[in-house]
Amino acid sequence: MLELIYILNLVGTVVFAISGALTASDHKMDAFGAVVIAFITALGGGTVRDLLLDSHPIGWMGDPNYLYAVLFAVLLSYLFKRWIASLRRTMFLFDTIGIGLFAALGTQKALGFDMHFTIAIMMGVVSSVFGGVLRDILTNRVPLIFRKEIYATACLAGASLYVILIQFPIPDYLTLIIPIVLTMIIRLLAVKFEWSLPGIK
Amino acid sequence: MLELIYILNLVGTVVFAISGALTASDHKMDAFGAVVIAFITALGGGTVRDLLLDSHPIGWMGDPNYLYAVLFAVLLSYLFKRWIASLRRTMFLFDTIGIGLFAALGTQKALGFDMHFTIAIMMGVVSSVFGGVLRDILTNRVPLIFRKEIYATACLAGASLYVILIQFPIPDYLTLIIPIVLTMIIRLLAVKFEWSLPGIK
Amino acid sequence: MLELIYILNLVGTVVFAISGALTASDHKMDAFGAVVIAFITALGGGTVRDLLLDSHPIGWMGDPNYLYAVLFAVLLSYLFKRWIASLRRTMFLFDTIGIGLFAALGTQKALGFDMHFTIAIMMGVVSSVFGGVLRDILTNRVPLIFRKEIYATACLAGASLYVILIQFPIPDYLTLIIPIVLTMIIRLLAVKFEWSLPGIK
Repeated sequence: MLELIYILNLVGTVVFAISGALTASDHKMDAFGAVVIAFITALGGGTVRDLLLDSHPIGWMGDPNYLYAVLFAVLLSYLFKRWIASLRRTMFLFDTIGIGLFAALGTQKALGFDMHFTIAIMMGVVSSVFGGVLRDILTNRVPLIFRKEIYATACLAGASLYVILIQFPIPDYLTLIIPIVLTMIIRLLAVKFEWSLPGIK
Repeated sequence: MLELIYILNLVGTVVFAISGALTASDHKMDAFGAVVIAFITALGGGTVRDLLLDSHPIGWMGDPNYLYAVLFAVLLSYLFKRWIASLRRTMFLFDTIGIGLFAALGTQKALGFDMHFTIAIMMGVVSSVFGGVLRDILTNRVPLIFRKEIYATACLAGASLYVILIQFPIPDYLTLIIPIVLTMIIRLLAVKFEWSLPGIK
Repeated sequence: MLELIYILNLVGTVVFAISGALTASDHKMDAFGAVVIAFITALGGGTVRDLLLDSHPIGWMGDPNYLYAVLFAVLLSYLFKRWIASLRRTMFLFDTIGIGLFAALGTQKALGFDMHFTIAIMMGVVSSVFGGVLRDILTNRVPLIFRKEIYATACLAGASLYVILIQFPIPDYLTLIIPIVLTMIIRLLAVKFEWSLPGIK
C-alpha cells in the first residue's frame, strides 16, 4: 500500500510537472523557467503545506526522486511535446487521480500534526491546489482557480470525506481510496457538466 | 485584557476578510476565490511573520476560530454586499484599529522571540501590511501600498513607539493602547490630508 | 576568511538592494515600496532557502546589519541616483561576485543540513536567483530569468563545482573561491556573447 502511494505520488508529480512545463512553453520561457514552473506546479502545494505545518524535511527535500521526476517531466515535454498533447485524456485522468491523492494525503498529514479537522481539510485542499496557484502567480495571471472553479470543491469534498471516514473502523486503504474516488467523480462531473460556483454579486 | 485583545483580533480578522471578499468580487472571482483572498488578506501578514519567526503552530492553525471568522466574513459579504458598502466609515474605523493592533502585537511577539528591536519593529509592520500585499499579488496588481503610502508609516510609528514604551515602567495595557492610538491618528490624518512619501527621482 | 565572506555578503546585499531600489523607482514607488523591493531583492533568496531548510534564525533576522545595509542602499539610491547610474560596470562586477558567493554559500549551508547533493545545488541556485524572482513578482512581471537566462546556469555551474571540490583535500577558501570565479566567468561570457538556453518548441 505504502509503495503504491509512493509510486502514485511520483506519477502525479510527473503529470503535474508536464502541465507546468507546457505552461512555461506557452509563455516562451527557456529551460530554466520550464524547470522552475514545472517544479512549483508539481511540488509547490505540498511545500506550502509542509512550511505551514512546520514539517521538515519538506517532502521533496528529503527524497531527490521528486526532483528527478520533475526533470524527467521537463525532458519528456521537450522531446515529445506533440505526442504529449495527443495524450490529453490520459494526462487528465492521472491529474485527477493526483489531486484526489494529494488532498487525502495532505489531510492525513495535518491530522498527524494534531491539527483541528477544519484546518486539516484546508491543508488537504492547499496541497492539491496551491501548486497551480503559485504557477499562475509566476506566470503573472490571476489564478484561474479563483475565477472558474475547476477542482477546489472536489478536493474539499474528498478531504472532508477522509476526515469522516477515519472515525469509523474501516481499513486504512479504503479511507484513502474512497475520498480519492469521490474527488475524481466530482471533478469529472464538474468538467462534463461545466459546474461552477456562484460569485458575490 | 487578554480576552479583549482576542476579541479585537477576531473583529479585525472579520473586517480585513470582508475587504478581501469585496476585492475578490471586484475581480469576478467565485466563492472559492473569495474565501482564499479573504483569508490571505486577513491572516497572510501574521502567517508570514510566524513563518519568519519559526513560531508554530501559526496563529490560525492552532485556533479554528480565525478560519470561522473568515468564512463568516465571506458569508456576510455574499448576503449583505450593499449594506456593507454603506458601512464604509465604520469598516474603516475597525480596519484602522486592526492595523494598529496587529502592528503592536506583531512587534511584541517578535521581541518575545529575542529579536533585535529593529527586526521586531519590522515584524510588526509585516503583520499589518503583508496581508494586503499578498492580496494584491494574487489579484495581479503591483501592491498599492508600494505606490501611495496608506498605512505602512503609521504602523512603523506605532511599532517603534511600542519598543520605546516597554523600556518604561508603564502598565502592560497602556504599552499596547498608546501605540495603537498613535497608529490610528497617523493613519486618519494621512487619509484626511492625503499625506504621501516621496519616491526616488 | 570568515570576516572577508561576511564583508562580501554585506557588499553583495548593498549592491542587490540598490538594483531593487532602482527597480522600485522605475515603477514610481514611494520610499516604503523602495525599501520593501530592495530588501526582497537582496535578502529574499536567502530567506526562501532558510525557510525551506528550517534554518532559524533566518540570516538577516539574527543580525540587523543586513537590514541596515538595505536601508543604506536605499538612501544611496535616493541621494546619488545619477552617480550610481554611471557606475553600472562596477555594480555589475560586484553583482556578479555576489551571485557567485551566494550560490556557493547556499550550497554549503544546505550540505550542512545533510541535504542530498542535488538538493544542495538547488538551494545554492535558489539563494542566488530567488530574490530577483520575488522582485519581479512584486512588480507584476513574469520573472525575467525565466525568459532570457541571465545567471541561473552560471549559479548552477558554480554550485555543482562546489559540491565536486569538497570531495577533494583542497583548502576551504579555494573550494569557495574557485566556484565563485567559475560563476563569474560563465556569467560574464554569457552577457558578452548573449548566450541563452533553448525553450520548448
